[in-house]
Amino acid sequence: MTRPLVVSMGDPAGIGPEIVAKAWSARAAHGLPAFVLVGDARAVQRVWDGPVRIVGDLAEATAAFADALPVLPVEAAGAIVPGTPDIDGARCALHALEVAAGLARSGGARALVTAPVSKAQLYSVGFTHPGQTEFIAERCGISGENAVMMLAGPGLRVVPITVHVPLAEVPGLLSVELVVAKARVTARGLQRNFGIAAPRLAFAGLNPHAGEGGALGREEIDILEPAIAQLRAEGIGAFGPLAADTMFHARARAGYDAALCCYHDQALVPLKTLYFDDGVNMTLGLPIVRTSPDHGTAFGIAGQNRAEPGAMIAAIRMAAEAADRRAESAACL
Amino acid sequence: MTRPLVVSMGDPAGIGPEIVAKAWSARAAHGLPAFVLVGDARAVQRVWDGPVRIVGDLAEATAAFADALPVLPVEAAGAIVPGTPDIDGARCALHALEVAAGLARSGGARALVTAPVSKAQLYSVGFTHPGQTEFIAERCGISGENAVMMLAGPGLRVVPITVHVPLAEVPGLLSVELVVAKARVTARGLQRNFGIAAPRLAFAGLNPHAGEGGALGREEIDILEPAIAQLRAEGIGAFGPLAADTMFHARARAGYDAALCCYHDQALVPLKTLYFDDGVNMTLGLPIVRTSPDHGTAFGIAGQNRAEPGAMIAAIRMAAEAADRRAESAACL
Repeated sequence: MTRPLVVSMGDPAGIGPEIVAKAWSARAAHGLPAFVLVGDARAVQRVWDGPVRIVGDLAEATAAFADALPVLPVEAAGAIVPGTPDIDGARCALHALEVAAGLARSGGARALVTAPVSKAQLYSVGFTHPGQTEFIAERCGISGENAVMMLAGPGLRVVPITVHVPLAEVPGLLSVELVVAKARVTARGLQRNFGIAAPRLAFAGLNPHAGEGGALGREEIDILEPAIAQLRAEGIGAFGPLAADTMFHARARAGYDAALCCYHDQALVPLKTLYFDDGVNMTLGLPIVRTSPDHGTAFGIAGQNRAEPGAMIAAIRMAAEAADRRAESAACL
Repeated sequence: MTRPLVVSMGDPAGIGPEIVAKAWSARAAHGLPAFVLVGDARAVQRVWDGPVRIVGDLAEATAAFADALPVLPVEAAGAIVPGTPDIDGARCALHALEVAAGLARSGGARALVTAPVSKAQLYSVGFTHPGQTEFIAERCGISGENAVMMLAGPGLRVVPITVHVPLAEVPGLLSVELVVAKARVTARGLQRNFGIAAPRLAFAGLNPHAGEGGALGREEIDILEPAIAQLRAEGIGAFGPLAADTMFHARARAGYDAALCCYHDQALVPLKTLYFDDGVNMTLGLPIVRTSPDHGTAFGIAGQNRAEPGAMIAAIRMAAEAADRRAESAACL
């Protein structure tokens, strides 16, 4: 029997339970494979009146999937009030993440999908990682620095080379080594997870017009160009740096498989402008496949049946396809 | 008889002549009002076989417009080879800009539309302004600093608060005074040129997630928030700062009339991602209406009948509509 995907519930007071339940409801329309929610079934039942099945293991989850949303239980001690996060919910979210990541790492589950957590809540229960990604990387025995965040929509994949840092710090953080390291992981990830044999990586310049030959900044000349040259010498199809403003329209996007961007908003602005409702966050560089919907807990609309499941559906599908790719290429060895 | 718009030809070796001619051909389909090209008719005839009429003044241009592209002559001394800019062409472009700006400033023409120039070429003939905008501002008796560049597509208007500077300099250039000054001009421009009585100005944060309450940078707290408070106290509908990555998708764009952005790519990336082929650059803060297509000379495709006139058509139409708005509001006084 096919192994299921595992989906960690995220914060039980956020929209995670609702969008996972809605994804299950849409399983036929979107051709989703079997998945199991790891978390507290009560959080789902608070916001959804569809069928839920508590299961004891992954095989049972796969068998149940056609008829009910399978839930592998991790229980919250508290009340679970949609829209009102609390400490018990944060503990439950962390426990669900731990169990789900372990199931993916052990190979029992095909891939890991994570619903949104509240970092502020997690910090209050002693979580010391910057985010879920670094936690998962550590559980996989990978340095958080070597896990690369890629955001993907139907027609665009972006990788921010620096992420959650003040903009003023970005120029000082960029280095040939960092750019090359991120690009290598990205190229390998596109091969393994998407089956792209020779990935084309387009680099965005840091400065307006990619620096205009040095007139508007030198990072293109001093950092990006040497990094691209080094990557090309390694056989990786890197090119640029390109002017960021003219590289994300439809015709330009057709020319590359991923855009490597210098900072958070340079990557996230085009991605979310185009794909606000179905953007997926995929972590590259891990031994497992891991995706998540590219949005937060949305406490403000939790429990109101207003959450759109599009990004969760896309995250489940992308994870399943990537897991299939990896299985195929492993079978070819 | 209605006054025409004036269109300066830009570099005669670029795509300017071709896109103006194509806009004339599409005048009926797009409901374009009479306009006259200021430049060298030979540059048009090199790349287009439609009817051209050399005219001696603006009234003659309006009369001729139905049957031919009217050209008010400013002649280049040189050969004019599409795709190969030269000194004579740069002098011609500058002369055309001077004449066209004068006609708009005098009131003889309703508005000014400028085709693309090569700054590098202009500098080689002694042009000392950063770009056409500053030149036009000076001819209008306005400091270049008080002219504000707005980029507009059918569903988005953006204003970069800093423009052609290295990204590393942006945080140091931002100030409450600068932000307030740019926003005032923007609000007034939206009223005068677009008839928006109470413009809604959305401010983008500089840092990821608009700084997350100071955790990812303090410019939002130290600069943008006080500037917004000051603008609101003046009665201007300013709000934010918002996380840049989630403010440009379709539903978010419906909530404001213009986005004020901290730097070039923050404004230009969403605009050109969405409206690469029909973006318009409009200068606010001038006594005249001035627009231009939001692209360059494209020497690489000049003379090959491959240039898309969409942005020039949009620039002419936006200029005409803005001129009408101004005339209406003047008539109401």
